[in-house]
Amino acid sequence: MSITVEQSTLTTRFRDVRTLTDELTGRLSPEDQVPQSMTDASPTKWHRAHVTWFFEEFILRNLPDYTVYDDSFRYLFNSYYEAVGARHPRPHRGLITRPGVEEITRYREYVDQAMTTALEEGLLDERARTLVELGCNHEQQHQELLLMDIKHLLSTHPFAPVYLERGPDDAAAVAAPLRWQSFDGGLMTVGADGDGFSYDNEGPGHSVYLQNFQLTNRQVTNGEWLEFMADDGYRRSELWLSDGWNKVGEAGWDAPGYWSLDDGTWTTFTLSGRRPVVLSEPVVHVSFYEADAYARWSGARLPTEFEWETAAARTGATRGQLLDPGRCHPGVAGETMIGDVWEWTSSAYLPYPGFVPAHGAVGEYNGKFMSDQHVLRGASALTPAGHERPTYRNFFPAASRWVFGGLRLAR
Amino acid sequence: MSITVEQSTLTTRFRDVRTLTDELTGRLSPEDQVPQSMTDASPTKWHRAHVTWFFEEFILRNLPDYTVYDDSFRYLFNSYYEAVGARHPRPHRGLITRPGVEEITRYREYVDQAMTTALEEGLLDERARTLVELGCNHEQQHQELLLMDIKHLLSTHPFAPVYLERGPDDAAAVAAPLRWQSFDGGLMTVGADGDGFSYDNEGPGHSVYLQNFQLTNRQVTNGEWLEFMADDGYRRSELWLSDGWNKVGEAGWDAPGYWSLDDGTWTTFTLSGRRPVVLSEPVVHVSFYEADAYARWSGARLPTEFEWETAAARTGATRGQLLDPGRCHPGVAGETMIGDVWEWTSSAYLPYPGFVPAHGAVGEYNGKFMSDQHVLRGASALTPAGHERPTYRNFFPAASRWVFGGLRLAR
Amino acid sequence: MSITVEQSTLTTRFRDVRTLTDELTGRLSPEDQVPQSMTDASPTKWHRAHVTWFFEEFILRNLPDYTVYDDSFRYLFNSYYEAVGARHPRPHRGLITRPGVEEITRYREYVDQAMTTALEEGLLDERARTLVELGCNHEQQHQELLLMDIKHLLSTHPFAPVYLERGPDDAAAVAAPLRWQSFDGGLMTVGADGDGFSYDNEGPGHSVYLQNFQLTNRQVTNGEWLEFMADDGYRRSELWLSDGWNKVGEAGWDAPGYWSLDDGTWTTFTLSGRRPVVLSEPVVHVSFYEADAYARWSGARLPTEFEWETAAARTGATRGQLLDPGRCHPGVAGETMIGDVWEWTSSAYLPYPGFVPAHGAVGEYNGKFMSDQHVLRGASALTPAGHERPTYRNFFPAASRWVFGGLRLAR
Amino acid sequence: MSITVEQSTLTTRFRDVRTLTDELTGRLSPEDQVPQSMTDASPTKWHRAHVTWFFEEFILRNLPDYTVYDDSFRYLFNSYYEAVGARHPRPHRGLITRPGVEEITRYREYVDQAMTTALEEGLLDERARTLVELGCNHEQQHQELLLMDIKHLLSTHPFAPVYLERGPDDAAAVAAPLRWQSFDGGLMTVGADGDGFSYDNEGPGHSVYLQNFQLTNRQVTNGEWLEFMADDGYRRSELWLSDGWNKVGEAGWDAPGYWSLDDGTWTTFTLSGRRPVVLSEPVVHVSFYEADAYARWSGARLPTEFEWETAAARTGATRGQLLDPGRCHPGVAGETMIGDVWEWTSSAYLPYPGFVPAHGAVGEYNGKFMSDQHVLRGASALTPAGHERPTYRNFFPAASRWVFGGLRLAR
Repeated sequence: MSITVEQSTLTTRFRDVRTLTDELTGRLSPEDQVPQSMTDASPTKWHRAHVTWFFEEFILRNLPDYTVYDDSFRYLFNSYYEAVGARHPRPHRGLITRPGVEEITRYREYVDQAMTTALEEGLLDERARTLVELGCNHEQQHQELLLMDIKHLLSTHPFAPVYLERGPDDAAAVAAPLRWQSFDGGLMTVGADGDGFSYDNEGPGHSVYLQNFQLTNRQVTNGEWLEFMADDGYRRSELWLSDGWNKVGEAGWDAPGYWSLDDGTWTTFTLSGRRPVVLSEPVVHVSFYEADAYARWSGARLPTEFEWETAAARTGATRGQLLDPGRCHPGVAGETMIGDVWEWTSSAYLPYPGFVPAHGAVGEYNGKFMSDQHVLRGASALTPAGHERPTYRNFFPAASRWVFGGLRLAR
Repeated sequence: MSITVEQSTLTTRFRDVRTLTDELTGRLSPEDQVPQSMTDASPTKWHRAHVTWFFEEFILRNLPDYTVYDDSFRYLFNSYYEAVGARHPRPHRGLITRPGVEEITRYREYVDQAMTTALEEGLLDERARTLVELGCNHEQQHQELLLMDIKHLLSTHPFAPVYLERGPDDAAAVAAPLRWQSFDGGLMTVGADGDGFSYDNEGPGHSVYLQNFQLTNRQVTNGEWLEFMADDGYRRSELWLSDGWNKVGEAGWDAPGYWSLDDGTWTTFTLSGRRPVVLSEPVVHVSFYEADAYARWSGARLPTEFEWETAAARTGATRGQLLDPGRCHPGVAGETMIGDVWEWTSSAYLPYPGFVPAHGAVGEYNGKFMSDQHVLRGASALTPAGHERPTYRNFFPAASRWVFGGLRLAR
Repeated sequence: MSITVEQSTLTTRFRDVRTLTDELTGRLSPEDQVPQSMTDASPTKWHRAHVTWFFEEFILRNLPDYTVYDDSFRYLFNSYYEAVGARHPRPHRGLITRPGVEEITRYREYVDQAMTTALEEGLLDERARTLVELGCNHEQQHQELLLMDIKHLLSTHPFAPVYLERGPDDAAAVAAPLRWQSFDGGLMTVGADGDGFSYDNEGPGHSVYLQNFQLTNRQVTNGEWLEFMADDGYRRSELWLSDGWNKVGEAGWDAPGYWSLDDGTWTTFTLSGRRPVVLSEPVVHVSFYEADAYARWSGARLPTEFEWETAAARTGATRGQLLDPGRCHPGVAGETMIGDVWEWTSSAYLPYPGFVPAHGAVGEYNGKFMSDQHVLRGASALTPAGHERPTYRNFFPAASRWVFGGLRLAR
Repeated sequence: MSITVEQSTLTTRFRDVRTLTDELTGRLSPEDQVPQSMTDASPTKWHRAHVTWFFEEFILRNLPDYTVYDDSFRYLFNSYYEAVGARHPRPHRGLITRPGVEEITRYREYVDQAMTTALEEGLLDERARTLVELGCNHEQQHQELLLMDIKHLLSTHPFAPVYLERGPDDAAAVAAPLRWQSFDGGLMTVGADGDGFSYDNEGPGHSVYLQNFQLTNRQVTNGEWLEFMADDGYRRSELWLSDGWNKVGEAGWDAPGYWSLDDGTWTTFTLSGRRPVVLSEPVVHVSFYEADAYARWSGARLPTEFEWETAAARTGATRGQLLDPGRCHPGVAGETMIGDVWEWTSSAYLPYPGFVPAHGAVGEYNGKFMSDQHVLRGASALTPAGHERPTYRNFFPAASRWVFGGLRLAR
């Protein structure tokens, strides 16, 4: 996470990130910004305030002349930083109606003003500038989260409301033909080497020993997933991990998240309303359990995160669909490594050898979640461009389906 | 429920009721109107739409030239009328962000316009006019509910926000001295006799045999409740019903709902924020279990609903504090029967002999809730004037504390 | 509960009751006597010890020369007497493997010996002798409970084990023809008058005013219940109380408790294994909700407990099938009032006017359960003869199905 | 798992394993063998039948002349082999009272007889003989499980019953002095190489790259754990994984499992009743979360499973306390690698590269549990001698405390 950033570049970077959040949330009414549709999700207005609070808490508060906007916001908009003090219980974020949307807009403007002044007047030392970059990455991560969360919220509405109007899909689009790509094993160096920004959990760079392996050239598509379903994939216990099979039974899963069989046609809820499933798009909103079962069904397996990272490095880390505010949905499956949908790996989310969390409260960012989570690699169609990188380690529990998660096969 | 109402009176009545709802909810932001703070409560905007839908569903839909505002509202804003069809699941009302507050305002205006036309042009037959009166009572009942619900919602906020600004309380106010009033028993006639509007559950009028009894001249006060607390009232199992004692343990009750011990002073959350408990006010936000335990502690008991009704009839059914939109809180305990706080009785909520629910969907209003609920009599400081009457039977489950429930003693 | 009993009669009474418990439980293996199949139920060995502890706790402990068998039993075998002190949490009774069955047998013998001595040597004063009678009634009540509980436990076994071998049923048996019997209303005296033993909750005797009413001459049969099912009784919301309809949905009820549709034939689990439903027997293992829905479906209603008691008094309180240790199952529905199955009434379980619980810990027997329970009248095929009486008030929550509950119609 | 075993050796092996089960369970009454004290545990009589069924299902059923003892046992005593068919739901194992303990003894004898005959008469081919060895290992694993489960069951009893009488502990015993041992990293070969029996999850042998590391020479002791507690180890969020910290709050953990503070002295429940904590014994019944927090507190970390295995190989895999039926409890912490308590590692339980589950139903043994479990290495004082080995991978969820789990530090 240590990196020297030019002042002017950082100012631009800060403004761009903040502006994108405003663009993404500006489409939502005050009412849309209030509810929390499940414990894992947060209200839009909470996201908007929380990412703002991050800059205030970790940067502006340390400046001699800064006046805190509202002291109560530390309690309301802290997410999980134990070191910062007491905070509002996560499951009740949807009950906090005040401050309202307009006041949060004023809070954002206040902090933006103070941050811009601090950046332009050179008031920030190197550590603070590093924290600005961290704050920008943090806000980008929340841009993806708030879109995931608003999608989940709108999906609970019986009449499939629209976040974003968008033209019809090209049902005739064709995915790239599926091929296996071979990679030699051996002693590999993986992880972030400190050249450019990265989260603490991406390092230290270190050696791992890999056997020879193969990866497919693209992600698994909806069309291929329908074959799995047609072959009773959701009804054959031998394909599933035990916990996954229990979850299938409890939750009644018989298709990816957001899918629904309407008059004989599989449709899926998108940020542009409910639409027919497009066969050539990568499958998305499948859990780790489903990805793992699909891989077993196809006679393959999921890649480890180090196989994935090695393959990304060797094939040029080609980009697919990243966040396009006018689309917010994966594109047709192409021969790329990063984008469209996050890819579940077989790796548990664990510290790299020699991992040390960042110092202070921001060190609570990643390390403390290193149990019973699964690594996803790449990026998705909700990930803002510039936030993705080959060493990025996303992580979610095995049953998560609201993340834009899909898969690629290995063997 | 059968009653002939003058056209012009009914139009005025309708307008007055509708206007009061607008006044009560106009103080709330769109954000305030969205969340559902518990399953028993509903969002403000849902209340506003639901009471409007009632007029549309049961009156306007039957008019030849009426165009339904939005067909989806039947699904969204039906509360529990099974006969009307499928409806949105109650626990998820807080996730419905659309229609928003502005559109609900338009919906209200649309229905108000159509209703006013129908009333003024004499398009409603007698049954329809009776349903208008029912709809007005229904909306009045929801006026109390929406205030109860917004109080509960705001109380979950860590910083005690204010619904209504109000001056300081008179801490020196003194309650009426406590006296026992004696009533002769015998064969009594209770229930509604059809003279004026009443709900179906208030009838038929019928005979019950009462023994001689006594009732206190006023409700139990906060000051008296503090004595109960000081005498370990919440810690002595012998004072409690078994279910109540279990609830005390599970919920950790040690004071009425909304009370908090702040720096040695008991405060209570009100619609005007958190304030010191006023000793001379009637205790409120106690459950049936607590009311019953208090009565046992004091060597008395709760009255039956027929004792209460008999006493109200004989003492002139004197009124205390009913809904004052500028106060929304009980007054000092006076020598009255109806108002300030609802009074828990010892009676289970059961049908009167010969009870027949109203015909059609509106017959689902009361009868189907006649199991495991407890009758409260009187009215509260949230009950709109004109909605209260001596035969009124309010009912809630025994553990309910968000209702404005208090008690009066009998023996 | 006050009654003078002859010494020799009481000794015989005590021995008879104790012997019947031994007979009923002697058929069960140690393993059968351990589990608790749901929180409402208790292990057989717990029942055997608990009823024994009752005599030790409330009678023998007060004798100067009595040595308590094992002090830890007070903690283990107290059921709910708060006044007696801490007790083992009810939901964990099935984990108490020690003392084992043999030691409990020794405990029973020890207490029997001490009680017999005390009774025969005249060591008990009148209050103690009254408590012996109460203890006998208490044990009789637990005889029914332990049979209900063992039935529930065995029913959870996938292969329907047998508690009691019994010959095949007479499928051709015919129930008594259904008739309505009319009763004049007026001011009636109900409740126990202190002549003979009764529980405290059966008194005081008092006046109630009844309108004219009719009752059927026998209980509703399985054959009639099948008509209700065939007429979509379990699928029509308008027949149900709201809580009942919710329960139907949650629990998936579509037939009485223990029923199962096996190869097109409805069978029911009995204490003699799984058997075809006998049409002429009274329906049993229906909840209050189901009884209430059936009554509404048939255009009638459930009787109040006072209508039932009045009818029983006027028709001679005729007995049907009481506990026959060789059958443990209702007989063919006959023209009787008391026996075969308990009858759900429309009455909530509430104190009679002037009710005062018995003094001391035994006063926790009945009064503290007087909320959200429903009165059943009569007796069942598990009720030991001599325990039933016309003023007896049994009570259970509305959703209970493991009690031997059925119904009779009123109008 | 492939291994050729001499016939006579295998017969002896089979008898020895079976005899030890009988010895361990012979101390328990029928009542003790029935309950299931939590979903993760099973009744003793279920364990006894299940391990017997394994031999019947996978070996004897394939012999031409074998008659199955009771067909219903396949349903009752299958644990989780989906391929074998339907099975009794795990959470309800404690309700199955039949077959009773005596019949299960007869079942064991029947299968023992058939197995002995088959072994002695050479009726088993190599695959079957391999399955006998697997069945013996399976039964040894259940010997540890049944002792864990009976300990948990007895611990729920309020009066701390004794499974096994044992003399007093030597409170003055001293643990081996703590030292760090250094190990060179590099490319290491880990996993089972097929020389001798091993489970499928221990292979294939493969290469991993390790950095240089240090391990302590012995396990963390109770005395050291008390220092962690004294230093607010259970109250400092910064020491804990996020999930662990939540668990501490929910479960109220403030000491290892089974510990209790009695009159100022920490005691622990053992299979010989409740006893004072012995400072020199290794700490046991701590979860992964606690082990991880302790390691962080001490400025160290948990070892990976490959560091552990490498250290075990290099130091001679020295044994500590394995199962002594007369003790069933860890000894004083000595300078050994395998025994006393299982050691939590930082490794998630995942398949080794190239892992393929065993063919058929027995392939459900290990692989399907490879998500969200944590690897423990070594063995415990409940592990029967001969079952432990350096490549053994035990695994449990992070919050498990009923396993005999402790820790060793790495850095």
